[in-house]
Amino acid sequence: MAENPLSPARKMGLPPGSAIYIGERRTSPVTLTLTSFSPEFVEIATLTAELPPFVAESGVVNWLDIVGLHDVSIIEEIGHRFNLHPLTVEDILNTTQRPKLDIYDDYLFVVVRMPTYNKADGEIGLEQVSMVITNNLLLTFQERGFAAMDSIRARITGAKGRIRRMGSDYLAHSVLDAVVDCYFSLLEQLEILTDDLEEEVIGESTKETIFRIHKLKTKMTLLRKSVWPLRDLINSLYRDDLPFISDAAYPFLKDLADHTIQIIDSVETLRDIITGLLDVYLSTASNRMNEVMKVLTIFAAIFIPLTFIAGLYGMNFNTAISPYNMPELNWVYGYPGALLLMLAVAVGMVTVFRKRGWF
Amino acid sequence: MAENPLSPARKMGLPPGSAIYIGERRTSPVTLTLTSFSPEFVEIATLTAELPPFVAESGVVNWLDIVGLHDVSIIEEIGHRFNLHPLTVEDILNTTQRPKLDIYDDYLFVVVRMPTYNKADGEIGLEQVSMVITNNLLLTFQERGFAAMDSIRARITGAKGRIRRMGSDYLAHSVLDAVVDCYFSLLEQLEILTDDLEEEVIGESTKETIFRIHKLKTKMTLLRKSVWPLRDLINSLYRDDLPFISDAAYPFLKDLADHTIQIIDSVETLRDIITGLLDVYLSTASNRMNEVMKVLTIFAAIFIPLTFIAGLYGMNFNTAISPYNMPELNWVYGYPGALLLMLAVAVGMVTVFRKRGWF
Amino acid sequence: MAENPLSPARKMGLPPGSAIYIGERRTSPVTLTLTSFSPEFVEIATLTAELPPFVAESGVVNWLDIVGLHDVSIIEEIGHRFNLHPLTVEDILNTTQRPKLDIYDDYLFVVVRMPTYNKADGEIGLEQVSMVITNNLLLTFQERGFAAMDSIRARITGAKGRIRRMGSDYLAHSVLDAVVDCYFSLLEQLEILTDDLEEEVIGESTKETIFRIHKLKTKMTLLRKSVWPLRDLINSLYRDDLPFISDAAYPFLKDLADHTIQIIDSVETLRDIITGLLDVYLSTASNRMNEVMKVLTIFAAIFIPLTFIAGLYGMNFNTAISPYNMPELNWVYGYPGALLLMLAVAVGMVTVFRKRGWF
Amino acid sequence: MAENPLSPARKMGLPPGSAIYIGERRTSPVTLTLTSFSPEFVEIATLTAELPPFVAESGVVNWLDIVGLHDVSIIEEIGHRFNLHPLTVEDILNTTQRPKLDIYDDYLFVVVRMPTYNKADGEIGLEQVSMVITNNLLLTFQERGFAAMDSIRARITGAKGRIRRMGSDYLAHSVLDAVVDCYFSLLEQLEILTDDLEEEVIGESTKETIFRIHKLKTKMTLLRKSVWPLRDLINSLYRDDLPFISDAAYPFLKDLADHTIQIIDSVETLRDIITGLLDVYLSTASNRMNEVMKVLTIFAAIFIPLTFIAGLYGMNFNTAISPYNMPELNWVYGYPGALLLMLAVAVGMVTVFRKRGWF
Amino acid sequence: MAENPLSPARKMGLPPGSAIYIGERRTSPVTLTLTSFSPEFVEIATLTAELPPFVAESGVVNWLDIVGLHDVSIIEEIGHRFNLHPLTVEDILNTTQRPKLDIYDDYLFVVVRMPTYNKADGEIGLEQVSMVITNNLLLTFQERGFAAMDSIRARITGAKGRIRRMGSDYLAHSVLDAVVDCYFSLLEQLEILTDDLEEEVIGESTKETIFRIHKLKTKMTLLRKSVWPLRDLINSLYRDDLPFISDAAYPFLKDLADHTIQIIDSVETLRDIITGLLDVYLSTASNRMNEVMKVLTIFAAIFIPLTFIAGLYGMNFNTAISPYNMPELNWVYGYPGALLLMLAVAVGMVTVFRKRGWF
Repeated sequence: MAENPLSPARKMGLPPGSAIYIGERRTSPVTLTLTSFSPEFVEIATLTAELPPFVAESGVVNWLDIVGLHDVSIIEEIGHRFNLHPLTVEDILNTTQRPKLDIYDDYLFVVVRMPTYNKADGEIGLEQVSMVITNNLLLTFQERGFAAMDSIRARITGAKGRIRRMGSDYLAHSVLDAVVDCYFSLLEQLEILTDDLEEEVIGESTKETIFRIHKLKTKMTLLRKSVWPLRDLINSLYRDDLPFISDAAYPFLKDLADHTIQIIDSVETLRDIITGLLDVYLSTASNRMNEVMKVLTIFAAIFIPLTFIAGLYGMNFNTAISPYNMPELNWVYGYPGALLLMLAVAVGMVTVFRKRGWF
Repeated sequence: MAENPLSPARKMGLPPGSAIYIGERRTSPVTLTLTSFSPEFVEIATLTAELPPFVAESGVVNWLDIVGLHDVSIIEEIGHRFNLHPLTVEDILNTTQRPKLDIYDDYLFVVVRMPTYNKADGEIGLEQVSMVITNNLLLTFQERGFAAMDSIRARITGAKGRIRRMGSDYLAHSVLDAVVDCYFSLLEQLEILTDDLEEEVIGESTKETIFRIHKLKTKMTLLRKSVWPLRDLINSLYRDDLPFISDAAYPFLKDLADHTIQIIDSVETLRDIITGLLDVYLSTASNRMNEVMKVLTIFAAIFIPLTFIAGLYGMNFNTAISPYNMPELNWVYGYPGALLLMLAVAVGMVTVFRKRGWF
Repeated sequence: MAENPLSPARKMGLPPGSAIYIGERRTSPVTLTLTSFSPEFVEIATLTAELPPFVAESGVVNWLDIVGLHDVSIIEEIGHRFNLHPLTVEDILNTTQRPKLDIYDDYLFVVVRMPTYNKADGEIGLEQVSMVITNNLLLTFQERGFAAMDSIRARITGAKGRIRRMGSDYLAHSVLDAVVDCYFSLLEQLEILTDDLEEEVIGESTKETIFRIHKLKTKMTLLRKSVWPLRDLINSLYRDDLPFISDAAYPFLKDLADHTIQIIDSVETLRDIITGLLDVYLSTASNRMNEVMKVLTIFAAIFIPLTFIAGLYGMNFNTAISPYNMPELNWVYGYPGALLLMLAVAVGMVTVFRKRGWF
Repeated sequence: MAENPLSPARKMGLPPGSAIYIGERRTSPVTLTLTSFSPEFVEIATLTAELPPFVAESGVVNWLDIVGLHDVSIIEEIGHRFNLHPLTVEDILNTTQRPKLDIYDDYLFVVVRMPTYNKADGEIGLEQVSMVITNNLLLTFQERGFAAMDSIRARITGAKGRIRRMGSDYLAHSVLDAVVDCYFSLLEQLEILTDDLEEEVIGESTKETIFRIHKLKTKMTLLRKSVWPLRDLINSLYRDDLPFISDAAYPFLKDLADHTIQIIDSVETLRDIITGLLDVYLSTASNRMNEVMKVLTIFAAIFIPLTFIAGLYGMNFNTAISPYNMPELNWVYGYPGALLLMLAVAVGMVTVFRKRGWF
Repeated sequence: MAENPLSPARKMGLPPGSAIYIGERRTSPVTLTLTSFSPEFVEIATLTAELPPFVAESGVVNWLDIVGLHDVSIIEEIGHRFNLHPLTVEDILNTTQRPKLDIYDDYLFVVVRMPTYNKADGEIGLEQVSMVITNNLLLTFQERGFAAMDSIRARITGAKGRIRRMGSDYLAHSVLDAVVDCYFSLLEQLEILTDDLEEEVIGESTKETIFRIHKLKTKMTLLRKSVWPLRDLINSLYRDDLPFISDAAYPFLKDLADHTIQIIDSVETLRDIITGLLDVYLSTASNRMNEVMKVLTIFAAIFIPLTFIAGLYGMNFNTAISPYNMPELNWVYGYPGALLLMLAVAVGMVTVFRKRGWF
């Protein structure tokens, strides 16, 4: 829970729209990467401090990718430069946002969360990626750089493909697509974990298994809670006839929305399976208890009568006084007889338990 | 889970609309079957490599059935020939799609999943069938050929029935109808499995029963997840006033939608029953434990007092020293008396347990 | 499950709209009862084979009640005569339909399921009743005749009531009303069963109780699944401004819809109660186990120390050799002392268990 | 269950709209109380048999309150007099209606259920109150008189308040308000019961506790089932722009609707709490079993080894024959040694169980 | 339950719109704080009894903050002065309202509940805050003063920020924002409690753990029930195009609505986790029982056979009479042999249990 990536952090008692960075403090410098391209040319410039003068040429798409949010002044400067609403700047800086879409007159503001999976400790992270989409311009804000962004840049430079011919809306779609891909790859990890857990529950479950089930279920809850708003957001993008989104981008956004439904379907299926595993686990635990009880009962039921018989002939009644007092003790075949009696009792018990199918 | 037919596969880091085959690799050649018909004539041509020149005669319906998707170049050629959107080609090749309906200007694109049931290992498969529906033309894409397609072709050649008089929309309906039929037949298998499980749970359940319940429940989850989008898809086809779907096809599509609701109803009913079986299973397991405990308790409660009495008269107090020390040992009827006491205790115990209804 | 009345049956591989009878084979002849009436006159004619020439007089309502569906040719002839869609004929003959309403240009087609309760084996049946409603004409199709139909005919002939003044829509309402009445009477049976079960669970539950709970719950599931579509159907009839349904019939149909909601409410309430009974059952079973365990523990905890003491003084240490070896055996009041010690232990134990409220 | 106040009763095989009284037979005479008032004057007249001639003066509101429904002829006469639909008369007489609102051209027909709580046996009753609302006229029908009605009359006569200045819609609101007040007071009782149950479960739960939980849960189910339709009904009254309801009454009806939502919220909260109590109950029962098992295990694990040692030295091997045969018996400190060994074993056991935190 | 802050209190039998104070009686005087401000000037006046004459200057926003509701006459006077509907006055005084929004012609009436958390006893309180929003005027009513109100006043006086430039709608937003902040801080407390509980359940759960789980779950239920209507209320404020709410306030209200969704998400996630903890708790309790049973069984299964053997050689068969009677007693190595046999049995048992993985 301590690392609940959905848990909201808040700056109490401050007016809304205050530009305060909420996230992990970092000391590395903020990186600004400006990618400008048209079908004919591409240019990538990496800056560290100052904002470049933009060429608002028609037909040229500019993508400014900001990595590192701890230097509030830079983000505020960008906010002023591109005329962003104070709430937008606040939301960019507060990295505990829920995925959402805000529609302003001059731009669309999109917040999504990029899932990461730490294989070492099995923790899921949800890094915030904010986007400002307007005509021929895309701003992306991240706390730390994702490889996915580099591969988008590589696609821009590498080939004169669709991404070069289309506008900032398709570029934004590419970023969303990268986020959705990360969900797919996270899902794959969770499917493997579920498979492992299933094998463990059916095979050799231990006391720790229940904790693993609980942890995996909690992960599923988190994942589900973060995919649903992502789906709503992407649905809005292609359904609500928004400004800055061209018709040409619609099929791609619908395709993306279909992928998010696939993710949700898989998450729900996994949740159902894990819930089922809990039932199986509890049932096998109860079966094991049953086994233990049977062993105890079999031992008790066989030996208690035998011990009683042994105790009987250990009594000290005076055989000399009367012929009624334990004459068996003085029989020639007394002892073998007692042993035979015991054997008969034991065999009888075993037969009864066999019949009941107890072993 | 490993064989989860709903589990999505993805090609990470590639731009959307890339024609990459995702499915099992096959080496058999791709088969193209072209069925051309009008109320007056029928012609079936089987091709292996090249696309035939189409006769776009009015009144003639063409159905091109493509079996085998591993040769990407053929699918791409078909895509170019019929002017399909790159996303459509991508979706045809990625055989892990969720059932869906995409509406393009020039055609409708439908993806459904044909359920198969492997009786040997009890696994459910969901093979993807993609359809492109446009005026007088139906394209169907499958990874491997289904007998259902042959029987549709047989209906086209065999009789001058409704299928010959109607267009590509009714032909597409026939394919969907075949898919729905497969769901019904799968459902029948699952009903038999549920009946068997019910008998097992009520009769002689074992430790493995819980695993069988879990597996069947997982199957139901999968089935349900794949029927819901199928229903939505078919509902859209007759409700949303789509192009390429004529009014004459509406009652048939509504009928089909009713069938999918019937399937969903049955799946939900089976799920409820299986969930109920889990309760019954757990309850009978707990009842069995109760039985074991009763046997143990009866044995212990009868013999422990007897053993105590035997132990009592096995004590070695010196009877010679004092008349207070175990005078019973020297009584003439000491031993028979002790035996009688034991009998009385045993009979008393049995009576008490009888009264409690323990045996 | 085997008798699941909602389980769909299908004729695989046949084109839709094929007139195939799906139901139990019967050999009794098909009965056709034609009731013609206006406020002024009534006429009932029973036919066995041929269709009568209808008097399409204005103001005269005709009701053709067909009992027995196994003779496909008769149903097909009726279909041709009244110009029914092939899918309607197919649905009439396939008696495993879900309740539904199909709207055609010339008529409304309604399928409902009449519930029956077999008191002997406790099984619920759901017989299909199909209706074709058009101006001044009602066709009803049943596999076997229901007494409810006769009582409607009796109301037509018996009195010049509302039924005689109103049209085929009110007549259809009367049939639906009879179906809803059957649900009420079935519900009454299930309430009695639930009451009995409640008494059994609270009073003297046995191992079989869990099976009864499961069976009753399954019945509720079936009932619920069949009432919901009935309600939707009746709601559509008065809300959707359908042809062939006059304004005068609206209050009556709304009243009927209210009744179906009442049924659903009761079914849901009963389901909740039965689910609660399961909890109570499991809890009492666990309480009973607790009782058994307590009995065992009390016996063991009282007698095990006593047996130990007895065993102690049954040891054979040589008292002659040393004064430290079991001097108690040679005490004058050794035996009474040992008995007193045992008594003290037993009383102490009983006191402790009393305090814990164990008995 | 037998007293399920939601359970519908029906007159089978009768045409709808038949005026048949369904309720408990009573012999007391029917009471009709006519309250006529305007801002200037008030007049209350109590009649027993005949309907008074109404003064349909403008500005004068008439409220006819009918107590006792068993005399069908009076109700039917009122029905004719005020031109009520036959279904309305039927619904007034059938006192097992679900709360509902029927809109007729000439009046609104409202059925609600007044909850009563019998403190003696803890049973909830739901008495039907029917209302016919039209311009300046309100008819109310009850099986037995409620004090709430008298207090409304007292408010009319007592003060020239709002109730005197407003019309029949506000009067109907006052009746509904009284019904909602009864729900609040019932809720208070159920909250007390839940508190008591919570204390019982956390403190000293017994075998009967589970039955009490079950009964209270069933009550909550009934209450919830009856409040939901009440809320829908009141929502309709102020939202659907109905005739006979003036704008001035809207805020009061919205206020009432808010109260019903508050009731629903509380009922749901209580249900959640009671469901939670079930978990707590089952868990404490299982904890108690655990305690019992621990006591048994501690006794067994301590005394069984001791008894074994005692038994060991109770063996009769011939010490005279060989020095290997139980030389301990002839040791000087044999007996104290054996006692010390036993003490050591006992202390060791106790220490181990202490460490495990068993006692 | 006794302190259920959602539990409604009602004044039975009174007409709606009666000005009756429902809440805790207080004797401290009512405090009225009037804050008047425009971008240019600020003035704060604290009054105790009389209402000040208002300057209805254009451009000046007046905020009257009333603390203490027990003096009904003051509230009624304010109601008359600002022309509030009697129901509004009633709702202000009845401090058990559900969060809601009432739209009147002259003003908006908003009721919210400010959550408080008592760290000492862990109880959640929900204090009512009522607001009347109209042009340039905001009335706020509280039972006791919140620090949050002071900090809003500080923001007004402290800086010429946005709050000074915007109207009463933004001021109302600031109050709502403070309420939402309180929910966030409450949520933080509950997250800590959940973390603690998780650690307790996984680590060292006791019998009290189940009560803590139950209490925390009940808290979550309460919290959820109070956040949902808050969200609906805030959604209405910016979506329904209300009077008195300017376009400039929309982004801030949408932002606030997003925060409430975040709260709901977190509450639901916590609820899921706590429900999961219950499963884990029950499972570990059952595992612990299993452990106890194993210990018992191991002890019993090892020592019961040994005790039997000891009992066997404690029998008193007369060895002198016959060579068949317990010749072992007279063997030279009889005793060591018996000890070895016992050892072999014990080692065998231990080996078997080891193999079963029991210890």
